[in-house]
Formats: sequence, structure tokens, C-alpha cells
Amino acid sequence: MTKHRVVVVGGGFGGLQFAKDMKHPDATITIVDRRNHHLFQPLLYQVATTVLATSEIAWPIRSLFRGRPDISTILGEVIDVDLEKNLVLLKDGNTLPFDTLILATGARHAYFGRDDWEPHAPGLKALEDATTIRRRLLLAFERAEVEKDPETRQALLTFSIIGAGPTGVELAGIIAQLAHKTLVKEFRNIDTRTARILLIEAGSRVLPVFPTQLSEYAAKALTRMGVEVRTGDPVTACDERGVTIAENFVPSRTVIWAAGVQASKAAAWLNAPSDRAGRVQVQSDLTVLGKPNIFVIGDTASVTIEEGKTVPGIAPAAKQQGKYVAKVVMARLAGRSSPGPFRYRHLGNLATIGPSAAVIHFGRLQMKGWLAWWIWGLAHIYFLIGTRSRVAVALSWLWVFLSGHHSARLITQKETLKDEV
Amino acid sequence: MTKHRVVVVGGGFGGLQFAKDMKHPDATITIVDRRNHHLFQPLLYQVATTVLATSEIAWPIRSLFRGRPDISTILGEVIDVDLEKNLVLLKDGNTLPFDTLILATGARHAYFGRDDWEPHAPGLKALEDATTIRRRLLLAFERAEVEKDPETRQALLTFSIIGAGPTGVELAGIIAQLAHKTLVKEFRNIDTRTARILLIEAGSRVLPVFPTQLSEYAAKALTRMGVEVRTGDPVTACDERGVTIAENFVPSRTVIWAAGVQASKAAAWLNAPSDRAGRVQVQSDLTVLGKPNIFVIGDTASVTIEEGKTVPGIAPAAKQQGKYVAKVVMARLAGRSSPGPFRYRHLGNLATIGPSAAVIHFGRLQMKGWLAWWIWGLAHIYFLIGTRSRVAVALSWLWVFLSGHHSARLITQKETLKDEV
Repeated sequence: MTKHRVVVVGGGFGGLQFAKDMKHPDATITIVDRRNHHLFQPLLYQVATTVLATSEIAWPIRSLFRGRPDISTILGEVIDVDLEKNLVLLKDGNTLPFDTLILATGARHAYFGRDDWEPHAPGLKALEDATTIRRRLLLAFERAEVEKDPETRQALLTFSIIGAGPTGVELAGIIAQLAHKTLVKEFRNIDTRTARILLIEAGSRVLPVFPTQLSEYAAKALTRMGVEVRTGDPVTACDERGVTIAENFVPSRTVIWAAGVQASKAAAWLNAPSDRAGRVQVQSDLTVLGKPNIFVIGDTASVTIEEGKTVPGIAPAAKQQGKYVAKVVMARLAGRSSPGPFRYRHLGNLATIGPSAAVIHFGRLQMKGWLAWWIWGLAHIYFLIGTRSRVAVALSWLWVFLSGHHSARLITQKETLKDEV
Repeated sequence: MTKHRVVVVGGGFGGLQFAKDMKHPDATITIVDRRNHHLFQPLLYQVATTVLATSEIAWPIRSLFRGRPDISTILGEVIDVDLEKNLVLLKDGNTLPFDTLILATGARHAYFGRDDWEPHAPGLKALEDATTIRRRLLLAFERAEVEKDPETRQALLTFSIIGAGPTGVELAGIIAQLAHKTLVKEFRNIDTRTARILLIEAGSRVLPVFPTQLSEYAAKALTRMGVEVRTGDPVTACDERGVTIAENFVPSRTVIWAAGVQASKAAAWLNAPSDRAGRVQVQSDLTVLGKPNIFVIGDTASVTIEEGKTVPGIAPAAKQQGKYVAKVVMARLAGRSSPGPFRYRHLGNLATIGPSAAVIHFGRLQMKGWLAWWIWGLAHIYFLIGTRSRVAVALSWLWVFLSGHHSARLITQKETLKDEV
């Protein structure tokens, strides 16, 4: 008997959880990803801001499944799905036949129709984004050190973060710390404490998914750390010189985008209805309408909780969906009845602001300050994959905590080789 | 009174040692480097081969001198020296006036007039070289996994290292370990143990700077680990398909260059006589003939020990020269007599081959095997800068030792942003 072929596209939180849970003697699983590594995105901003090294938060997908001979891993870029022949099409011309398909292709940052802003305001989704932002941050200080014109110097020392969700808040806090503490003694011609860090939010408050009083606490904590919080006005323009907030132009040579995401192209591959963020509208069992053997999970899926409310694009949600789909597929293979519709269990929201400052919202529990910060840290270490990374990240944080120095402050430059793939 | 301006070009072992030792109330020091970090080159091959992370062996130069207000650090590329006006010229148009100049600009790999080989056979000198080689190594296995043509698959699984000095030997050993041990359980379509690792040396034996019996031991240890050692024939051609050894073409998609280096352009800037490797021929006090205020040290300097023998291009030699020049400059500023000519003290040679196999040659002491390996490891940890890196590298090695897994197996891809600097 030929085995049931399951193809998983995407090695993020959802795809990985599915593969871990999905075990059946009559099934083979193939995981395809454009990158060779799973990335722990919740800590990516710490790579961008020189606290952690890339290898502390990313692991080769195939090494995670070395003990599972039923799982193959393929490095490849999916460009389409053939719905008639049940084939996944790869960019290199290869095809992967499937009996069951799991699309867990995630999201990228989106510029709401202003894609021309991307070169000036990079977002933060992949490891390369993080090293790009790290390079820009560090180069801005280096250039300011040798710049003679005071206006240009101030523009170099002005950092703008667009969007005040958890990522924006975390970036602003840590850049403020870098400029106002870590780097102070290392420059001779500039005072890095004169650096301006702007956190720009079109909505009325920072951390809009949190209760109002936690937003207020976060805004105050950021202000105390030296961040200028600008809420209520959108960015209307963005180029290599700076950003325009409503009608005011602010010269700023480093701009980071933390304002919005767009789901991957899975909806187009499936020719399926999608929501405004490009997410595929799925059935209550996470399958695509009319395609009971195709599941969409994680940031690529739009899953309704109640009227007008969808499952948020966070790691725990993707993992729950991966777990659920594994149950559904295994039930089908065993000829058992389906486990019923997917139910999202919201565990809560966490965001860190700076040293000893974080906010937590778990159901009726609201918490802020140093205890919240420790819970945030322990939760993130716990969810890292593997003892090695847990020890390495704990050590990096302990080092920053004790010495105040960041250990990953490297500007790595562009490729010089031309034939790179 | 204006201060005595010392400019140091290059933040390698020599430049850094000079700046550490050079302390005088009437002197200011400016360190210029193209990169923002000092790199511990002796362990760079371990970044290339997925054992260590980049930030474990590199540190921002300015952070090393945060406690020295007399030292400024500038990120900049030197393009020439104006010998009449005593100015260092930078690519960005800035100039740096000096009273004393220390050129410690190091070396790059050289292709002996075959620069067209570089895209096919990258060398290993900078962090970017290491991540390039790491990406190519890992991509070769990934491509072999999906390749259907057996000949192409074998070419993808053939790794050639050109040059069997310490770097070549270390690379060959660790790639053999990666293919024959670490990766074995992670691939489903290929057996990584069928990978061929060729170590090609035009000379008659591996590790030519070591005594003959240590070379023989190294060659045997390599063979036992699965490396094909090919001595006595040069590489005569190299392209994207493979290498030609003497007249035999070997299909090999991954080729690494470890065969030779060329000093930086300092000799041209100074219009000074240089040797075959481009190194500036310096006086016995490491100054340039006719320019008593310009010193050249490290891999850029050709320092004669005795007839036909020069100081080797290794870290301890560069450090000794930095130390010596600091003494000379301080003596001059204090109006004391010069400490006499530079004397090189050869401490010995170390090279590691693989787990529990290394060779040591210290004067009359020759050592090989596991004890040599431990001494090699401890010596390298000891010379790393900072407690943080020592702990991180020790932890990474301990992890590999206990688990056999490498933790930095990341393929990071090319920039997608176009405006990168």
C-alpha cells in the first residue's frame, strides 16, 4: 500500500507543531520551506538590536526532525498549487504530490499600498531583516561620529519606529537603552544620549491590544526611557531623508516598519476567498471551502472566533492550529470521527518595554513592572527550542543584565562574491 | 600644547595590541578600520563550518576601548597616505592628520594571478567569507537531497579544499565530521557519508611548517576521518563545475581556497619596497625606510629574522610587533632612547585536525593527539577577548562535544533591499 503523503509548506510555529504531533505508520510527511531554519520570531527584535546572535533563535528544520525518519525536509520555494492534480509546484521546477496539504506560510510586513517605503523603512520578519536593521542602527551612530554638519548629524541620530504594537514598543525601548546607556562611553565626537527615538502610532494609544491602563503604563515607561511617543497621527510620507507625521517632516535616517503584516500568497494559489490582510478564509475545521484535504493554519489563515473577531497572528495560535490539524488528519487516517471544529484558546498577551518593565494581560490578570518582565523572560526562554538555545539566550540576557554590554554588535557587510545564490 | 596624534590603520591583532599598550598623556590615538569589529581569525573556520556563531569571535573595536578616552575609533576605508602632509586619506573624503602612523592592515587571500578563481573558490579572511562558505556548504547538501541526476549529486557532495596549511587541514577535518557524523540522520534521499572531502596541496606534505612526523600524523588522522589527502600536485584550473588537479578534472561544486595570502595595499600607499607577498620591507625598528614616523606591523610587514627567513603571518607575531612599536613610540615621546631592534620570539605552531586530534610544535616539544587538542582548545579560549566570548565558545564546544550537534547551521540569504550600504 502506498503511504498517505502529507506536505507541509512552511516551518514556522504552526507547521512545526503539526509535524511534531502528526505520527501515523501509514503517512509520510514532507516539510518545504524557503529557508533552512525555523525562526523564533518573538525574539527577532533582539537580534536586530544587538542583544542576541542569529543562531540563538534559529534552528535548522531538518535537525529538529533527525529522529523522525517519516519526515523529509526540503529547502525550496513554493510558487503555486495544482488543485486538479494535487501537486505543490516549486520554483526549481520540482513538484511534490500530496494527499493532504498543510499551508502554514506565514506573513510578511505590509506597507498598505506604499511598497515604495520598504527600502527606507525595513520591517522585521526574517533573520536577514534583523541583520539589515542591526547594520543600519550601528552605521547611523558610526556616521554621526564623523559627520561635521550638525543637521545631518541630528538626522543620523534620529530613529523612527512606525507602529506601536508589541514589536514597535520593544524596538523603541531597546534602541533607547542602546543610545542612552550602552553606547554612551564609546563615542568621542557625539553624545549618543542626544539621540531621538520616535515611536509613531496612528491609533490613539500604544499596545492597542492591551487594556487601556497597561497602554498608559507602557507609554510612561517608554517616555521615562527617553522615547518620544507620538500617537494619533499617521505617517504620510517616508523617504531616505526621514518621515512625515501628519504634516510634519522629521529628518530621520533610520526608520523601522512595525506597522502591519500581509499574509503570504496562499490565497492566490488556492483561488480562495481572503480577508483584507490576505488571509485565507477557512472552514471551522481549518480546511479550505470545497477542498477537504487542504488545511491553512497560522498567520495565513483567517479564523473567525465570533462576529468580526478573528484568531490573532501570534505563535500560540499557530501552534494550537497545528496541533488541531494533526488530530484531524490522524482521525481521518484511522477512520475515526473528526474532533469537531477548531476552538481557539486565548492564553493572553505579553510585551516587554525595557529592563524590568513589561506588561502582561492574561484573562482577568493584568500585571506590569519587573515581575511581569521576569515572567516574560522565563516564558520566552521556555518556548525556545532546545537546551542549547535556552542556555545561550539566558547567558546573553544575564550578560546584558550584569554588564550592560550587548555582545552582538556586528556590522556585517554585503556580499562581495557575484555568483551567490 | 597640541597632542601627538597617532593614527592606527587596522584593528587586527597588531593594531589592537599597539593601542592597548600605547598610553601617554600627550598622545591621542585614532583607530581606523573598514569594519566595526576586531575578528579572532584563528577560529574563523569554525564559523564557516557551523560550530560557532559570528558574534562569538568578533567584538566592536570601539567597545574594547570604552575605558580609554584618549582613543577614538573610526569606521572608514583608507585609500592612500599623503607622505608630504602626513595625512591618511579615507574613501568618504575625510582625512586624518598624523604625527605617527601605524599601518596594521593585514592580508587577504590571494590567487597568485588567478583572480578569476575567486568566485568559485572563496577564501576565508572576514566574517562575510565565513558566512558565504557556510551557506555554500549547507546548500550543497540541500541541493544534493533533491537532485535526481547521480553525477550532479556526487559533484554536489564533493568538497575540495585547496591548500593544506593549518586552515585547510582544519576545514577538511571539520567538513568530514559534518558529512560523516553530524548530518547523517537528517537527510532522507542522500547518504551524507558518501560525501568526498578532498584536501589538495601542491607541496609534498600537509602542514608544511610542522616537523615531518607531525605532518604524517595529521595526514593519517585526516584519512581516518574520511578526508582524501592529495599532495604533490597543484590545482591547475577551477570553475563552477569543479577543480583540475594536475591534469585530472574532479567535479566538485564546493571549493574553498586556503592556499595563499597577499598583504594589503600599504606598500603602494607608501611607495615602499615590498616582497613577493606584497608585504612592506621594514627596518629593524619596524619603520619604513626614510619615514621614521611610519611603522608597518603584522601581516602587512616583511620582517627579516635571518637570511631568507621572515616573521610568519600569525597572531602572536602581530601582537609582539604591536607591543614593540608602542614601546618605541612611548620612548620617543618621553625622550628616552629606543628599545633597540625588534626581536621576534617564536612561541610555536598549533593546528587542530578534528575531535581529539591536534598537533603542537613548541621548540623541541612535539605533541599530537587528544592532549594536544585540549591544549589547542584552552589556548584559543584563553586568547579570546572578554569573559563573555570565552564562556560562549566554551559552551559551544562543550555542546558539540557532548551532543555532536552544531548550533550555527543557518543559511542566511542575500540582501533583498537594494539601497544597502
